[in-house]
Amino acid sequence: MPTYKAPVDDFNFLMWELHKIDQYKDWPGYADLDRELTTAVLSEGGKFCEEVLQPLNQVGDEHGCVLENGVVRTPPGFKDAYEQYCANGWNRLGSPETMGGAGLPGVVSLAFTEMGFSANHAFSMYPGLTGAAMAALAATGAPWMKEHIVPKMVSGEWCGTMCLTEPHCGTDLRLMKTKAVEQDDGTYRLSGTKIFISGGDHDLTDNIIHMVIAKIPDENGKLADDLSTVNFFMVAKVNVAEDGTLKDRNGVACGSIEKKMGIKGSSTCVLNFDEAVAYRLGPKPQPKKEGEKRSSAAGMKGMFGMMNAARLGVGIQGVASAEVAYQNGVEYANERTAGRALDGVKFPGQSADPIMVHPDVRRMLLMGRSFAEGARAVTTWVAILMSQMHHGKTEEEREFAADTQDLLTPVIKAFFTDMGFEVSNAAMQCYGGHGYVRDHGMEQFVRDARINQIYEGANGVQALDLVGRKLARNGGRGVMNYFAHIETALKECEGNEKLSAFAEPLRAGYQALGDATGWLMENAPGDRNHAGAGSVDYLRLFGLVTVGLMWLKMAKVAQEALDQGTDNPGFYERKLTLARFWMERMMPDAGACLARIRAGAATLMELDAASF
Amino acid sequence: MPTYKAPVDDFNFLMWELHKIDQYKDWPGYADLDRELTTAVLSEGGKFCEEVLQPLNQVGDEHGCVLENGVVRTPPGFKDAYEQYCANGWNRLGSPETMGGAGLPGVVSLAFTEMGFSANHAFSMYPGLTGAAMAALAATGAPWMKEHIVPKMVSGEWCGTMCLTEPHCGTDLRLMKTKAVEQDDGTYRLSGTKIFISGGDHDLTDNIIHMVIAKIPDENGKLADDLSTVNFFMVAKVNVAEDGTLKDRNGVACGSIEKKMGIKGSSTCVLNFDEAVAYRLGPKPQPKKEGEKRSSAAGMKGMFGMMNAARLGVGIQGVASAEVAYQNGVEYANERTAGRALDGVKFPGQSADPIMVHPDVRRMLLMGRSFAEGARAVTTWVAILMSQMHHGKTEEEREFAADTQDLLTPVIKAFFTDMGFEVSNAAMQCYGGHGYVRDHGMEQFVRDARINQIYEGANGVQALDLVGRKLARNGGRGVMNYFAHIETALKECEGNEKLSAFAEPLRAGYQALGDATGWLMENAPGDRNHAGAGSVDYLRLFGLVTVGLMWLKMAKVAQEALDQGTDNPGFYERKLTLARFWMERMMPDAGACLARIRAGAATLMELDAASF
Repeated sequence: MPTYKAPVDDFNFLMWELHKIDQYKDWPGYADLDRELTTAVLSEGGKFCEEVLQPLNQVGDEHGCVLENGVVRTPPGFKDAYEQYCANGWNRLGSPETMGGAGLPGVVSLAFTEMGFSANHAFSMYPGLTGAAMAALAATGAPWMKEHIVPKMVSGEWCGTMCLTEPHCGTDLRLMKTKAVEQDDGTYRLSGTKIFISGGDHDLTDNIIHMVIAKIPDENGKLADDLSTVNFFMVAKVNVAEDGTLKDRNGVACGSIEKKMGIKGSSTCVLNFDEAVAYRLGPKPQPKKEGEKRSSAAGMKGMFGMMNAARLGVGIQGVASAEVAYQNGVEYANERTAGRALDGVKFPGQSADPIMVHPDVRRMLLMGRSFAEGARAVTTWVAILMSQMHHGKTEEEREFAADTQDLLTPVIKAFFTDMGFEVSNAAMQCYGGHGYVRDHGMEQFVRDARINQIYEGANGVQALDLVGRKLARNGGRGVMNYFAHIETALKECEGNEKLSAFAEPLRAGYQALGDATGWLMENAPGDRNHAGAGSVDYLRLFGLVTVGLMWLKMAKVAQEALDQGTDNPGFYERKLTLARFWMERMMPDAGACLARIRAGAATLMELDAASF
Repeated sequence: MPTYKAPVDDFNFLMWELHKIDQYKDWPGYADLDRELTTAVLSEGGKFCEEVLQPLNQVGDEHGCVLENGVVRTPPGFKDAYEQYCANGWNRLGSPETMGGAGLPGVVSLAFTEMGFSANHAFSMYPGLTGAAMAALAATGAPWMKEHIVPKMVSGEWCGTMCLTEPHCGTDLRLMKTKAVEQDDGTYRLSGTKIFISGGDHDLTDNIIHMVIAKIPDENGKLADDLSTVNFFMVAKVNVAEDGTLKDRNGVACGSIEKKMGIKGSSTCVLNFDEAVAYRLGPKPQPKKEGEKRSSAAGMKGMFGMMNAARLGVGIQGVASAEVAYQNGVEYANERTAGRALDGVKFPGQSADPIMVHPDVRRMLLMGRSFAEGARAVTTWVAILMSQMHHGKTEEEREFAADTQDLLTPVIKAFFTDMGFEVSNAAMQCYGGHGYVRDHGMEQFVRDARINQIYEGANGVQALDLVGRKLARNGGRGVMNYFAHIETALKECEGNEKLSAFAEPLRAGYQALGDATGWLMENAPGDRNHAGAGSVDYLRLFGLVTVGLMWLKMAKVAQEALDQGTDNPGFYERKLTLARFWMERMMPDAGACLARIRAGAATLMELDAASF
């Protein structure tokens, strides 16, 4: 049976010692925050994840979800756990108090999100998607929805979904066929098929609020073949009157649930919309003028906001996968005996040493922890940036925060989920054959982690977003300011001999990132395939350097604590070890990424499709 | 539904154009071989794999194996397919004619093995293990076994297994508890529990021949805590008299079958041996003298031979996984439309271009094919070396062949299976969300491929075998001669401008490999943990260069064919593209591997076990 222990100490270190959030007392939600409070909240939340959610993780995988007589049933125990989840208030942790939330800032609710996904990925998708849908509805919904629907999603009484993908299109939403026809009363009737809808139907709540994109047909009933008429809609499973009372069952039904590689406790539904009552969200789109080029309607904005939040959420899931897989790898490595240490017997009283004595087992495990803690430093930082973009003191601070979180979103989504999968596989590998059988739960971690690289935009699409959109945005302002931030961090360590072992490899990685950026800027305008050919390596390089930046900063904090004296030296010494690991064993990939980027597109484009 | 097309042309190219096997006419099995014959055999075999085995691949995954009332049932269709398999003679393809085999050399039977594993990994394990067990019994068994049992394993009438792992030990067989007690008639009674036994029980054949290792207790019934009394035994499911007639059911029973991540159609059994009649194989061990150090009994040799063959077999499975996953990735990439080519619309008549236009999709697919074809060049070469080690003209040729296959065995097992998994994941990634659901079969390829990195010695153990044993063997003779072989290949391309794009990256990778070897030779003797810390990166580096060596050789052959004129230029041009891909996009990893090896063990060994 796998186990999980919430990393509360690490979250506290990140909030109070690395990011020093006590400097943000004047931001909403931060005023009453202190280390005692975050310890209390996260310990309590961690305990819930450890004791309620984690024990249901294998149950969910074993039973999966079933569709019987039109009803989707979640695995045994899920409904009861969900009720406790809501009753304990975990669902409303990060929502504003005005909506019935607890009003804690994102950096705290993020911690709970990560812990929930470590403990039970499939379960945590129900509240995860609900949160994303709720935020979108809160941002774009009509006043009556904010009054009567949003609070129910905040409390968890109702769940929510995101309905984007259709059988023939996911990434390319221009091709979407779902249509919404306006009625005399201003509502719409929405028809079409959406697939891969997480939590599309289930038995956890009485109602489900679907956030749906669909095209509005022209007066002849024709759908445009671009994004110009795509709009964002709310469709309730059970219709809701404007006074909040429940009405009749809406025209949306679960056609089937997918058999998947993993996250089997999460119901992945085909949803059939048949003249469903739908409410358009956001400003009303104006008809396109003759000859006007318009890539998307105003209503798409709500969807993009929801997707961005979801992408960060998926990145956090990558960290969550790595953390729990790592923890279980350690447990086995300390328990299982085989062979003897290469440098001599370590446990002469036993017939063999625990496999933890082997450098390569330690390498696999340290990769896990070095990634998880480095990546967590990034996610918590970005959560703070997302407060700072609104509440930062100066325009410059707000702009830096907005630009940087925008720039890092695809990196977090793709690099963190790639690494989450790598780490899960490495932890499983520590178990040998026992990792491949189901009992220990390791292969489930791998199967569950695999989805993170795919949903909310496959990782290759994230890479294109980074090189194709994010780098160029505002004339490259975001990336230039981010690079300046890295240089400042490097400069702050100059001349500090204790930190040079961290600063020098980061400088080398940063140099490679700069060279790669220059190469792309020089070559991609002439042949855009160069950008596509190098995009995945560029994103990985960006991720290696970003996590490396955090490790330099953490090494600085840790070294200072050790220099000043601390009653917890083991904690800070481990930080230094993990920082060294990242610099010695992950950062060398930077040079390989650069070489691949410079190889360009020619070889990739050489063969015609039939020659593959 | 996934598909599979046997790569017959590539096998023919490798045999007749790259390795030029017509030069070996005087070796057994090679005399009657010509391109027409290999084409006929492999086309027919390929057709069987495509039409009989492949359609059962998803069936096997869906149904798995079941143990009911003490009987293990294989998935629907497996028994019928197995009967056709044997009736068509595929089981006996590579066995010597003296044993009832077809007498084809290993390089031909290997091709069929790879195709079988591409088509149906789980199914192919039954004949695969049988082949390994048969070879071990043929090498070590008594004359009556060779007369009455081996031929039945050659024909496939009976299956075979390898029984090594026990619940508490796999890699470290010193800890084994299974014991075999000698009887007055010279047979043994074998008792203990073996786990993870592939094909341990099933309904395909009437009898199963288990090749088992166990300890012979001393006169006080005590088991030694080392390998000194480990011996190799044959245990038949149904006892066989020395005249070949079947007797009573033996004391071996399947206790349970494992629930696994993949290869569900292969029955992975817990086997309980209870006073089973066992026959010791190989020379009788002499009692250990006082103070004598002995790591293993003579009887272990048969087991090591079996394991070595099995390791090569698993490496071939890595290639097989890559090939079939790649093929299905291509199919989808040509079919699925999304977005437009980065350098302009390619299919203006369609609403979107097929995703094959995207450089990153091509990158994922070309990685698959560049690996599969490069690795196949290695496996076919090693199959030839395994003939050459016996039949080579000179002592030098025989020694080079024996040394090189020995050196490359862990590289093939570990690097090829790591890459098989990477390629399967990349191919699955091309499918987006459709790769994660079961219908397309892509996630099954990933789950099935994952076992290859674990069984027959986890890949980390292979890496230790390479750095700890293979490098040092015979004073480093094997590795030095192999490096000289690479240098010769590089020298043969010197001054050839058409080949410099392949030779230069290989030279850089080879330089890194040389530097890494030097670093290990210099540093590992002082701290053996340095060898363990760098072992996995060293093996990867070795694999990158070895496949790179094959690509240089193939590029040379392809360039010559194009220069001389050929009626199949597309084939050779693709070879050049794939060679370029390996050099541009895989070889850069060599530098990163070297940097990690040079980082040494210090950081890995810094934390005490409790600090993980």
